Amino acid sequence: MSVRDTFNKHLLHPWSDLPNLGEDDSTPVIVRGEGVYIYDDNGQRMIDGPGGMWCMQTGYGRQEIADRVATQIVELGYSTAFSTINPLEAELAQRIAEKTPGDLNRVFFTTGGSTAVDSALRLCQLARNIRGEPQRKHILCRDKGYHGSTYLSASVTGKERDKTAMDTAVDLVHFLTAPCAFYQEQEFASEEAFCDFLIAELEAKIAELGPENIMCFIAEPILGSGGVLVPPKGYNRRCWEVVKRHGITYIADEVVTAFGRLGHWFASETLFDVVPDIITFAKGVTSGYLPLGGYAVSDAFMAEISGDNAEGNCYSNGFTWSANPVSCAAALESWDIIEREQLLEHVRDVGPYFQAQLRTLMDLPLVADVRGMGMMAAVEMSLGSDAEGEALLEQDYHLGDLIDSHCREFGLLVRPLINVCIMSPPLILTREQVDDLVSALRKALLKAQEELLG
Amino acid sequence: MSVRDTFNKHLLHPWSDLPNLGEDDSTPVIVRGEGVYIYDDNGQRMIDGPGGMWCMQTGYGRQEIADRVATQIVELGYSTAFSTINPLEAELAQRIAEKTPGDLNRVFFTTGGSTAVDSALRLCQLARNIRGEPQRKHILCRDKGYHGSTYLSASVTGKERDKTAMDTAVDLVHFLTAPCAFYQEQEFASEEAFCDFLIAELEAKIAELGPENIMCFIAEPILGSGGVLVPPKGYNRRCWEVVKRHGITYIADEVVTAFGRLGHWFASETLFDVVPDIITFAKGVTSGYLPLGGYAVSDAFMAEISGDNAEGNCYSNGFTWSANPVSCAAALESWDIIEREQLLEHVRDVGPYFQAQLRTLMDLPLVADVRGMGMMAAVEMSLGSDAEGEALLEQDYHLGDLIDSHCREFGLLVRPLINVCIMSPPLILTREQVDDLVSALRKALLKAQEELLG
Repeated sequence: MSVRDTFNKHLLHPWSDLPNLGEDDSTPVIVRGEGVYIYDDNGQRMIDGPGGMWCMQTGYGRQEIADRVATQIVELGYSTAFSTINPLEAELAQRIAEKTPGDLNRVFFTTGGSTAVDSALRLCQLARNIRGEPQRKHILCRDKGYHGSTYLSASVTGKERDKTAMDTAVDLVHFLTAPCAFYQEQEFASEEAFCDFLIAELEAKIAELGPENIMCFIAEPILGSGGVLVPPKGYNRRCWEVVKRHGITYIADEVVTAFGRLGHWFASETLFDVVPDIITFAKGVTSGYLPLGGYAVSDAFMAEISGDNAEGNCYSNGFTWSANPVSCAAALESWDIIEREQLLEHVRDVGPYFQAQLRTLMDLPLVADVRGMGMMAAVEMSLGSDAEGEALLEQDYHLGDLIDSHCREFGLLVRPLINVCIMSPPLILTREQVDDLVSALRKALLKAQEELLG
Repeated sequence: MSVRDTFNKHLLHPWSDLPNLGEDDSTPVIVRGEGVYIYDDNGQRMIDGPGGMWCMQTGYGRQEIADRVATQIVELGYSTAFSTINPLEAELAQRIAEKTPGDLNRVFFTTGGSTAVDSALRLCQLARNIRGEPQRKHILCRDKGYHGSTYLSASVTGKERDKTAMDTAVDLVHFLTAPCAFYQEQEFASEEAFCDFLIAELEAKIAELGPENIMCFIAEPILGSGGVLVPPKGYNRRCWEVVKRHGITYIADEVVTAFGRLGHWFASETLFDVVPDIITFAKGVTSGYLPLGGYAVSDAFMAEISGDNAEGNCYSNGFTWSANPVSCAAALESWDIIEREQLLEHVRDVGPYFQAQLRTLMDLPLVADVRGMGMMAAVEMSLGSDAEGEALLEQDYHLGDLIDSHCREFGLLVRPLINVCIMSPPLILTREQVDDLVSALRKALLKAQEELLG
């Protein structure tokens, strides 16, 4: 049986389209990766536009990571964080603590971003209960924010188009406007005016719920899967100031933005002047090679619920593979590569070129918006029709599928999120490869344009 | 800084005791593993009693797994299941489908047991909504059941002693009596009478809630972290019959029991005559070397929510590392080792000897109960005092800590869950190693007995 036939018979994939379950004929079968390229089972080479899924920081085929992981598997292939300590988690936690802002010095490891967010939120719930504020249950989050796929992390996710008939904990969450001018029907005179509106909305929501009932605010510095939404200047900092003034915990979800995506280990303080109470991470921490995630939490936060303040509690939360030494080995080697090859500096150098070149696509009628920062970007496509709701969604899906298929033909994998091409290539992407990527995308857009608009 | 100092300063571990956060002086630092043995940073060799954490099926130091994983990392170190297919997930899913009972032919991969359960429950929620039964929200589960650590999987977990001040979704869940005679204050004339009681309780709970309001029943065939609770004969089958009669989905949580722990790939049908709608798995699937989990779901279940029945929905749930090729490579190699070394047959051969030898400890006053099946067992300890509640819990913790420390001295890691030594050694354990394990445990118990009872 072919891989595709086996897939159709035996697999359920994330975001499976249930009407077509078992009848897939277009998802590429990927068999090899090298550098910024992946190869399908027909030998077609493609630049990996989304970089795996925001994660392939150091690129594919890294012998160094293979060697370090193999050595670790033979040396100590497992160690449980429930009752043993392994030296690798200690080294990795120390490195992370050094790079996180403020006194975020304590790290909890999970198996990815969803469990990082889920665990961070559960820590906040526990903390409020211990601190005698059990009524502080409300969570503030944003439309188009993406925070994961467990029941709780999906509950704080604001991507309405994704949710279909899934259940979430609606009682716990409150959504604010996505901080992206492109999605505003209401027009604002300036970026600053838009930012004022967003901050006023946040203040009003806090007043409405009562600050004494609010547990935390969770936010990606740049919204990733929601479509690479770069907020107005000053927005993150101003949100943080408001939130902190009301004793609300600030969680920065840096699952996408950490480990070099924006040219820094973490983006919160360096780029946005925010010192969160908790930062979640995953994806790039191992360059995508092995599952790992977690959060760093401030000493101040922990001091309020430990020692004499602990009220005898334990943090009864954790996973079989929390801090497993093999994933930590991959993370340490990826870290070393980022330092050795100066990839943070590389991103700060090539990132602006990448952004500028992508913006040249704005001359094409199918391109509605190009936005981004560092090595993350979105090219949003639209037919500019008057369709709405379901009809628009169907049209957007079709457009995305068409671009996806044409891009592959021209040597680029884009994996549109409906009608938005997410760009999050390996950080090692060179200027020449930026040119190749943009050129392939232009060809695909032109071809689609000819078919759709004539 | 020493590993322990770094740990104390920079790590938060699962089930961290918050009053003593940052002041750990007893958790062993593990630096190496080989076969059934692990080594701490003082060079002390110990049999790994809990087998990592119910997961080290093929033992430590497997060069074959290192080689296969390293090869995969160089070939294709990542592939996203959101939009690409990789050949390894297809092969692994096919193998799993072949071994699961009935028509459980479709596999969804996650990063461990918690996400497997969380995702399975979310699939059930979606399915009820699609099928026009959105009121079917209630989940039936059992006291002392353990199903994970995300908000939702922790909600169906019935280990009261663990929960402390953590929040869970209490509205969604209903707990039934743990199917373990040892925990019954009420005495029953026979195993059958106890089983009758449990089934009557299940029937009564269904009648009380109304079957039309119940989504699913979730159960480990043998309750693992709750203390290796082997249910009365016929219990699993009778629960399944009741549940199915009322149109309730049956989820067998085989995160612990699958992949050879009980001498079979999966235990549900072979040992308990149950064909679940969904089986969750994790841990042993990769022999603990890499994070991986998931569930297998029946074709019948999926037929009701796909194709023309899908109502246009998508299964908007999944993880960055769902079906990642590197974890799948580890799983395929572990699978090959289990077949090549005939470890299922080995467990069926050595398992009864392991159980019998552990039961010889029942002559010791500190040993309150020994129970288990295959290569999973529990030795429950008690001081036999009249203490209750908090005082008893403290006493039990102290007893567990003492045994833990003495066992290590005699070359055995036991990691008691409070006062219960969980035994889940690598499946490769030989008869001689069974003798060593039991002998070390006896020595530790005798030493503690002398200290505590004089």
